[in-house]
Amino acid sequence: RGAELLHKAAAILKEHKVPIAECLVKEIAKPAKDAVTEVVRSGDLVSYCAEEGVRILGEGKFLVSDSFPGNERTKYCLSSKIPLGVILAIPPFNYPVNLAVSKIAPALIAGNSLVLKPPTQGAVAALHMVHCFHLAGFPKGLISCITGKGSEIGDFLTMHPGVNCISFTGGDTGIAISKKAGMIPLQMELGGKDACIVLEDADLDLVAANIIKGGFSYSGQRCTAVKVVLVMESVADALVEKVKAKVAKLTVGPPEDDCDITPVVSESSSNFIEGLVMDAKQKGATFCQE
Amino acid sequence: RGAELLHKAAAILKEHKVPIAECLVKEIAKPAKDAVTEVVRSGDLVSYCAEEGVRILGEGKFLVSDSFPGNERTKYCLSSKIPLGVILAIPPFNYPVNLAVSKIAPALIAGNSLVLKPPTQGAVAALHMVHCFHLAGFPKGLISCITGKGSEIGDFLTMHPGVNCISFTGGDTGIAISKKAGMIPLQMELGGKDACIVLEDADLDLVAANIIKGGFSYSGQRCTAVKVVLVMESVADALVEKVKAKVAKLTVGPPEDDCDITPVVSESSSNFIEGLVMDAKQKGATFCQE
Amino acid sequence: RGAELLHKAAAILKEHKVPIAECLVKEIAKPAKDAVTEVVRSGDLVSYCAEEGVRILGEGKFLVSDSFPGNERTKYCLSSKIPLGVILAIPPFNYPVNLAVSKIAPALIAGNSLVLKPPTQGAVAALHMVHCFHLAGFPKGLISCITGKGSEIGDFLTMHPGVNCISFTGGDTGIAISKKAGMIPLQMELGGKDACIVLEDADLDLVAANIIKGGFSYSGQRCTAVKVVLVMESVADALVEKVKAKVAKLTVGPPEDDCDITPVVSESSSNFIEGLVMDAKQKGATFCQE
Amino acid sequence: RGAELLHKAAAILKEHKVPIAECLVKEIAKPAKDAVTEVVRSGDLVSYCAEEGVRILGEGKFLVSDSFPGNERTKYCLSSKIPLGVILAIPPFNYPVNLAVSKIAPALIAGNSLVLKPPTQGAVAALHMVHCFHLAGFPKGLISCITGKGSEIGDFLTMHPGVNCISFTGGDTGIAISKKAGMIPLQMELGGKDACIVLEDADLDLVAANIIKGGFSYSGQRCTAVKVVLVMESVADALVEKVKAKVAKLTVGPPEDDCDITPVVSESSSNFIEGLVMDAKQKGATFCQE
Repeated sequence: RGAELLHKAAAILKEHKVPIAECLVKEIAKPAKDAVTEVVRSGDLVSYCAEEGVRILGEGKFLVSDSFPGNERTKYCLSSKIPLGVILAIPPFNYPVNLAVSKIAPALIAGNSLVLKPPTQGAVAALHMVHCFHLAGFPKGLISCITGKGSEIGDFLTMHPGVNCISFTGGDTGIAISKKAGMIPLQMELGGKDACIVLEDADLDLVAANIIKGGFSYSGQRCTAVKVVLVMESVADALVEKVKAKVAKLTVGPPEDDCDITPVVSESSSNFIEGLVMDAKQKGATFCQE
Repeated sequence: RGAELLHKAAAILKEHKVPIAECLVKEIAKPAKDAVTEVVRSGDLVSYCAEEGVRILGEGKFLVSDSFPGNERTKYCLSSKIPLGVILAIPPFNYPVNLAVSKIAPALIAGNSLVLKPPTQGAVAALHMVHCFHLAGFPKGLISCITGKGSEIGDFLTMHPGVNCISFTGGDTGIAISKKAGMIPLQMELGGKDACIVLEDADLDLVAANIIKGGFSYSGQRCTAVKVVLVMESVADALVEKVKAKVAKLTVGPPEDDCDITPVVSESSSNFIEGLVMDAKQKGATFCQE
Repeated sequence: RGAELLHKAAAILKEHKVPIAECLVKEIAKPAKDAVTEVVRSGDLVSYCAEEGVRILGEGKFLVSDSFPGNERTKYCLSSKIPLGVILAIPPFNYPVNLAVSKIAPALIAGNSLVLKPPTQGAVAALHMVHCFHLAGFPKGLISCITGKGSEIGDFLTMHPGVNCISFTGGDTGIAISKKAGMIPLQMELGGKDACIVLEDADLDLVAANIIKGGFSYSGQRCTAVKVVLVMESVADALVEKVKAKVAKLTVGPPEDDCDITPVVSESSSNFIEGLVMDAKQKGATFCQE
Repeated sequence: RGAELLHKAAAILKEHKVPIAECLVKEIAKPAKDAVTEVVRSGDLVSYCAEEGVRILGEGKFLVSDSFPGNERTKYCLSSKIPLGVILAIPPFNYPVNLAVSKIAPALIAGNSLVLKPPTQGAVAALHMVHCFHLAGFPKGLISCITGKGSEIGDFLTMHPGVNCISFTGGDTGIAISKKAGMIPLQMELGGKDACIVLEDADLDLVAANIIKGGFSYSGQRCTAVKVVLVMESVADALVEKVKAKVAKLTVGPPEDDCDITPVVSESSSNFIEGLVMDAKQKGATFCQE
């Protein structure tokens, strides 16, 4: 029974939280504490999917034919959920474990096999995580992990005729995948411009704390990060002061020390962010910190 | 097909809105306009139930056996809705047509037969209404109407072994019915003390208009009538003034003239209300109108 | 969180399977192996309810008002499940643990408090079982156990105004309870005449094995026991022979030795069964075993 | 209210069944009776969607946040269905009216606007049908019809950035559309190889009648046509004889005379079918009719 194996995999994953979290620290510079949290929450998610799956998949529909005008009640229709086949899972670099299990666990409980293409940074953590599923008893052929750069093996996997569904989390690459993929179901969890909306009667200290947490956790490399703050004119200045004070206290340093701001994932990412800053300066932005 | 017959019955009911509404005016002193509205809305409700029934009843569940730990997937369970049998419907005097069809239409679309015991006042309107169902093509045995005082035929019907379900709308009688009925499903739509809650920032004109409408429509003889107003101290006096002004404008007279306050349904009801007023006076209540 | 406490209670229950099963052996003469199975399955059921509850209770409905003809989309309706209050649980003697937890666990996960009235025979097992819930962290007031004969405390509990719902499993007593209980929801799991239907192409060995298991497990004292066998004439004789051969092999003796046929629960039960046998003899029945 | 307008459109469509059916006869050579049936059933479908929509769209979900381990019950989630925007509907030539309204009615009841690209053969019937929606009161901008060859305006529409969803019924073109369309939801109702499976105990006369009806209606130009018959060896010869006898009775001629076999939709279609026949002959097939 898949559910039991998943519960077992969840327990094994949590047991190995330390070494897997260490990979996350070294591979993607995630603060040490957050890295452990990611692994633990991934275990919880696997257990959760096991139970959800048992419930959702155990129930189908039973329809009779006379609900459309003119039809007789001479036919029955039974519908139940069946596996898609081979699922290709492509998680992003910022949560190589959590956003991988969020694809792996539902796929397995629903009876599919799964091929994981982990991000280049995060691949070692992913390999360890997949190993936990093998240790729990899932056969190696049922869940496989293929590492490599997207530019090298991405197209090969995306366009492979044996793939019956692609579950992707990430950014612009999603558009390319949707163009290249065949006529198969795509699950696309892409980026967004998440706004924090602040009304006049808001608790500004709470707001400021959440803007900092939402905007700067893992140096802002999160698809659900706060990217825009829309605030009522009357409280805007007060809020800016509170946010500024908190930004000034953020620590910068290596992830091993649980610093708030750690190195971003790649040099190109670093250059891109610097470019945004320069561009803003040129266009006349006032900087709160310098 | 029951749905088509119900749509037909709905149309026939609406066609006969004038004579049926006249019965309501004469039997229960319902203002003429409201009486017509009751019949029209009853027709809409019948059509609505026809469509709801087709959808709800056409769909069952299909379950597999391995969703409980330790069970194998060797059994299937199909569940679908089936008729209960004979439904006894007992609507109240205030909506002899509308609260009867709200029991008749669901019962019929679900494949049941139905026995209607209409209120003593309202029985003539009910007989005409049931006739519309017969005209639409429902066999006479499938929907019957038995008139008479509750004290005379109520217990006989309630305790009849051939009744498989009772759907009752009314007041204290409901408790007696629930004691006397056998171990069959009971649907009880009983009274309540409906409160109107008024906060400080409410639009007091709108509130006053709704208190009048909610409290005095059909002389307050409605289970969903506004019976208590809970208002913030700071706006209470202002609200009282507005309500008083509107109460003063209510017209008193016969239902044929669409008066706001019409005779209540029986002498005992009239005496009961007068008793409440006397009791309040004795206990020192301040009257707004005298 | 109730779900976590229930998972804990399930684990504690399973840990104490040996002493609780011993009570079942001594109190109700349940074969030793079956007694252990009952406790283990009860633990599984508690865990299962915990997960079901989280899913069912976490989801409500959100309705808009314009789905009925003539209404505007100006109102919203949110519906969610809320606790009933105090649940009175009355399980039968044949499964004092399993049919108690099947009432306790759903009641607790849904936020209710619970009063258990265990069967006279089986009360000690029930007290131990309830203790497991207390050990798991449920407060003593939230789940209580009141022992005593039905004739002494039954009516008191059934008619108690503080009880908001009764969940009963048993036989004829159910009718009495439904008469005495107030206008509260009743959950009645009563007896039945379960038939085993055998068609011509059935595997007769499998059928015979299941008739024996279904009819004689726990000496037939089960509401889902096979009570009638309806078999096609053409295979009836062959089936009778197969069943006879298997009946001859059933062992009779004390529950501690895992005998197939153990003493029934009370002298009056024994007398009742003997009476049925005598009656059948008198009416000319042919006995297969004597 | 969309539902009322749809019911009105359905009625208008049925009123104009004769002229629209005539278009179908002339444009796509559909037998006269079938053409009328198509229009009438389309009206039924529009009414059906109106009611389905009211029910499905009026109900959302209301979720609380504590169903995932570790979350507090501090957040609520309300979900309801909202329109997608502009739907591009591309029905096939064999049911230019029915498979168009099966896209139009759901789109409109759900609050979308719709652009219809009817098949080249069938465009006149489609224009008349769309006109019925305009007559019912749907604004011209809400539902538009753009005629033209797929090769000329197909890509333009499919790749248009203003289109939020494509609903297509047809054949191989579906693959091309899925490649060209942007990252928008696609509803693809494509062809199939529908098999008729015949077991030994089947009523062969009924089977033969259904093979004829399923395989030769509208000269077989239906996506749900019977294309393969899989029959148990033991009854195969008998079935072939029965089918042959019925095929021999099929009438060939113009659609106006309700002939069974009417001209196929285009010369290229005719050539394709002839090619299949020639290919089968060359490969040694035995022909039942010649």
